[in-house]
Amino acid sequence: MTHLIYEQPLNEKTRNYLRLEHLSEKIAQVTQQDHHHFCFEPIFALAELTERCDFTSDVLKDIDKQVLLLSKWHNLPHVDKQQISELISELSDAKQALNQSERLGAKLKQDKFLSALKHRFSMPGACCNFDLPQLHFWLELPWPKRQLDILHWVSEFQPLLGAINLLLKLLRETAKFIHATAEAGFYQTNSDKMLSLIRVKIEPDQQCYPTISGHRNRFAIHFVDFHKQKHTDKPITFMLATCE
Amino acid sequence: MTHLIYEQPLNEKTRNYLRLEHLSEKIAQVTQQDHHHFCFEPIFALAELTERCDFTSDVLKDIDKQVLLLSKWHNLPHVDKQQISELISELSDAKQALNQSERLGAKLKQDKFLSALKHRFSMPGACCNFDLPQLHFWLELPWPKRQLDILHWVSEFQPLLGAINLLLKLLRETAKFIHATAEAGFYQTNSDKMLSLIRVKIEPDQQCYPTISGHRNRFAIHFVDFHKQKHTDKPITFMLATCE
Repeated sequence: MTHLIYEQPLNEKTRNYLRLEHLSEKIAQVTQQDHHHFCFEPIFALAELTERCDFTSDVLKDIDKQVLLLSKWHNLPHVDKQQISELISELSDAKQALNQSERLGAKLKQDKFLSALKHRFSMPGACCNFDLPQLHFWLELPWPKRQLDILHWVSEFQPLLGAINLLLKLLRETAKFIHATAEAGFYQTNSDKMLSLIRVKIEPDQQCYPTISGHRNRFAIHFVDFHKQKHTDKPITFMLATCE
Repeated sequence: MTHLIYEQPLNEKTRNYLRLEHLSEKIAQVTQQDHHHFCFEPIFALAELTERCDFTSDVLKDIDKQVLLLSKWHNLPHVDKQQISELISELSDAKQALNQSERLGAKLKQDKFLSALKHRFSMPGACCNFDLPQLHFWLELPWPKRQLDILHWVSEFQPLLGAINLLLKLLRETAKFIHATAEAGFYQTNSDKMLSLIRVKIEPDQQCYPTISGHRNRFAIHFVDFHKQKHTDKPITFMLATCE
């Protein structure tokens, strides 16, 4: 088993970005492999989140901020100018795609097939053959055909998800992992910088997972024994990265 | 592509049985193959349905009714006495298993891991790494270990699901498929018997699915063009079974 990385956002924006990134990973799962009716859950969750809140303006502002920062770095000596140029170009492409995209979820809302499904997917066990005969028909189509449908449905979200993945990649690169120990399963610290994201890398062999809480420049980590489902008293060694 | 069978229950009890059977099929999917976090959806749906309504008394009554019916048949000449005896024995086993089972969902409710997940699974996109670090830990366990967990979680529902599958098998065997045609995509008829279940078998090549409505001894079938998502005017040939 390899290391596992647990993350905790320390502000609302990063929290939203991580939620969308998580859905984008689920969508990748259901577009790459046939998960039958399970494919609809991440599509509907994405439609609901983006309807409830417009993330585009936050993302566009963040892209501009990153481009400005990278442009400053570009003028410094001893930097990898080519890598910086590539990143600036990736960010500009992401911005352009985002500016060109229509109001998110509009296409999905007009889709009669999906609308009928969405309504029933929110009720437990309400997607039977007799509730949704059209779903029964669709699920029997060959997988390549269904795969194309799924790709089509999620296409309008890709500019947003692509931009967020890029911004999170840059955020994660702001800090390197360092060794740390949680005596009696507990660790806390302050930072003199405003933090956005705490990352904890740990070997699953320790049979523990971290619960992280914090805000801005303070955070605490409690390690929980998975099998006992309670706080562990043991000293836990882990790797920590605090991203700004 | 093989034939597709669409079903419509004509009473509340059969409707419930089909819902539970549908969940039992989904549960079979997630116990046989690794569908990652998607495995929880049918487990939670099953827990919710069985908490909301006690299906056990209906099932026990139905088992008794079927045993009585089969015992009468057993005394007739020209029947397959061995098959009937086997069915009676299966039904008796199902009844015994159901009588021995505890209050459904009790075990699941006490499971701290599942309780934490259940709460968040009802919210869209709310199962991130930081929402549920314990899920992140669990999902990285080897599949055979997770498979055992899933089998353990659903075990308490198996007596109910097994009995329902058996009763639906008997119900479906009460009628044979006959050829039928829906002129201009529409078919309706009455029966002099009380019907429980309508079954429509159709070749997907016709690119149509049926929407069936009805009650007790009357029902109507409209065929819908999947691609246009509206009623078709074409004559549709199909196979029909009306189960009592």
